Amino acid sequence: MLRTQGVTAPAGFRAAGIAAGIKASGKLDLALVFNEGPDHSAAAVFTRNKIKAAPVLWTQQVLTTGRLRAVILNSGGANACTGPGGFQDTHATAEAVAAALSAWGTETGAIEVAVCSTGLIGDRLPMDKVSAGVREIVHEMAGGLSGGEEAARAIMTTDTVPKQVALHHEGNWTVGGMAKGAGMLAPSLATMLCVITTDAVAGPEALQSALKNAVARTFDRLDVDGSCSTNDTVLLLSSGASEVTPSQDALDDAVLRVCDDLCAQLQADAEGVTKRVLITVTGAESEDDAVTAARVIARDSLVKTALFGSDPNWGRVLAAVGMAPVKLDAEQITVSFNGSPVCVDSVGAPGARDVDLSGEEIAVVVDLGVGSGSASIRTTDLSHAYVEENSAYSS
Amino acid sequence: MLRTQGVTAPAGFRAAGIAAGIKASGKLDLALVFNEGPDHSAAAVFTRNKIKAAPVLWTQQVLTTGRLRAVILNSGGANACTGPGGFQDTHATAEAVAAALSAWGTETGAIEVAVCSTGLIGDRLPMDKVSAGVREIVHEMAGGLSGGEEAARAIMTTDTVPKQVALHHEGNWTVGGMAKGAGMLAPSLATMLCVITTDAVAGPEALQSALKNAVARTFDRLDVDGSCSTNDTVLLLSSGASEVTPSQDALDDAVLRVCDDLCAQLQADAEGVTKRVLITVTGAESEDDAVTAARVIARDSLVKTALFGSDPNWGRVLAAVGMAPVKLDAEQITVSFNGSPVCVDSVGAPGARDVDLSGEEIAVVVDLGVGSGSASIRTTDLSHAYVEENSAYSS
Repeated sequence: MLRTQGVTAPAGFRAAGIAAGIKASGKLDLALVFNEGPDHSAAAVFTRNKIKAAPVLWTQQVLTTGRLRAVILNSGGANACTGPGGFQDTHATAEAVAAALSAWGTETGAIEVAVCSTGLIGDRLPMDKVSAGVREIVHEMAGGLSGGEEAARAIMTTDTVPKQVALHHEGNWTVGGMAKGAGMLAPSLATMLCVITTDAVAGPEALQSALKNAVARTFDRLDVDGSCSTNDTVLLLSSGASEVTPSQDALDDAVLRVCDDLCAQLQADAEGVTKRVLITVTGAESEDDAVTAARVIARDSLVKTALFGSDPNWGRVLAAVGMAPVKLDAEQITVSFNGSPVCVDSVGAPGARDVDLSGEEIAVVVDLGVGSGSASIRTTDLSHAYVEENSAYSS
Repeated sequence: MLRTQGVTAPAGFRAAGIAAGIKASGKLDLALVFNEGPDHSAAAVFTRNKIKAAPVLWTQQVLTTGRLRAVILNSGGANACTGPGGFQDTHATAEAVAAALSAWGTETGAIEVAVCSTGLIGDRLPMDKVSAGVREIVHEMAGGLSGGEEAARAIMTTDTVPKQVALHHEGNWTVGGMAKGAGMLAPSLATMLCVITTDAVAGPEALQSALKNAVARTFDRLDVDGSCSTNDTVLLLSSGASEVTPSQDALDDAVLRVCDDLCAQLQADAEGVTKRVLITVTGAESEDDAVTAARVIARDSLVKTALFGSDPNWGRVLAAVGMAPVKLDAEQITVSFNGSPVCVDSVGAPGARDVDLSGEEIAVVVDLGVGSGSASIRTTDLSHAYVEENSAYSS
């Protein structure tokens, strides 16, 4: 696993990232990922929010074909809650990308172009800048060999570092990916934006199966603040350029590992994070129950502020899990912090108040005492920096 | 409605508050409310947390009789997650109160004494101090006329002011109350601790009906941080000393108004509050849907931090409500801040980013566009002070 490479690590992919002037800061804000083929299979997972941004509505339609030639992504604006005009902007962006790629020599239709946007909800995009940027980025991509890192930088919002990873399989095929997302990371979802590429030979069904499985175990189990975006999109594209057809198991495993690594990078760069926290629930009646209980603990503001303060206040963990809609034995709950038991059979353990939580990583394990289901949720503490960063985002 | 009087405003009630040494600070920490009769009807609502503190388990048993002579309340320790030993401590406390009242001349059994505790979860109470305190507080109450305010002060934890209220009904009967609670205020619950008294003549069923109705519309719709305590208890006691039997409607109304006022006091003194926020959802398919949607918005950390920053970031309201498990029309949602429309038909309104949210009160109204159900949830912003106060509570 290399974090110095991303979507252009697999054969058959080009990418670019430019500053199109969408962000007032002048930073990189437009990214393109292009699949040179020979195959153009694709799969996707989208936000479950009922309020979906225009690019999500567009890309959902595009993906019904199971085929994708390019992905255009912008930061600096989510194009969400922008009405029919916002949807027309997304459509026009896809048309502009298709036209520019066709002019360059690759006959492309708008229906082969996915669009992803991220940034503030509610404002229209500056379409003059987007349109000019699309022409420029196709030119830029055509001239260079690998713009993977620039693409990863161009989708950043409050992220402080680009997130990319590549896994070179011993069978001579590769999976690469990039992602952005620092807040509004939440349950039952993908993350904000993520593009994964592979040169393996794999059809849309194989890709969808691998992606769905991976997202359920990675991005769906990252919960920074319980808030869920209108724009979340995870895409998986295959070029088939390696001419190797991996087994479904091998593909599943590789995509899972790439998603898991990107997920860890998102957690580490989450807004205001001072602690990386892993909440594991064991002894649940089912894996689903374990996920639910772990998520309830991970979302509890009192638990998260205590962890920010390195305070081993295990009573808040019990109070939180007691509200989870799962079966538990109220007199048999066991909790440990960083491997030290702090609560046994629902009663405080000796030395519980002295456990050292001053490090940057905290492991919380809660056993519900009723079964063998288990699962983990990645989360973060709730810090002053989180409040600061989120109290003046739009203004 | 007078906030200078509380549980001793109705005829037939005495109260006291003392410093028993349970709190290391030496502040008031033990309260007693005593019903002199002639009636001793009582009703209660308890936390729905599966993890219940010892005093909740005890008081639930006591209330099955519909009868209560006294309530003993302590701050400085929740006596939650303390196992069988903690339950014995609660039982011993009730026995001590019964013995002291009997010695004073009012034959009392432990089964007539409710016990409430609040403070840190997980530690045993210092029973030597509690026992000595019980003897002292009964003596104190016997000597004085009205200790209502001292009682209200003795149940404070992170509260900065005591909360009490009295409503003198024109029909010559009175309802009074006190409450504590500043954090861990959450859904589907009473608040932390609340004792309401009345000199109206009313049996346990009439009291339970009035209390259940009032709690559902007041404390159950206050959501400061989505965290739910192990100790929440709301008690309603009647002495019948006014010899007036109000109609059920009149009783319901008076208890509702007292609970509503105490609820507003809790909201105003919530941990770290800089803004009092009222989230109202209209146009829902049902009142239940409106409550659910308003609660999802009220609990969203990104909405709450934006309000702390006086930032009219209405897109976060839409992103939050889009995850509520209720029916809504994703293209017909309307949002206003302090009466100014900021989003109409799911699209930003002109001037939306300039709405002034700098005041201490913010009204958010969200119309879902599918029906006529409506409801409001009281909440607060998420501030630096909330993080500060909760990052080092136990240490």
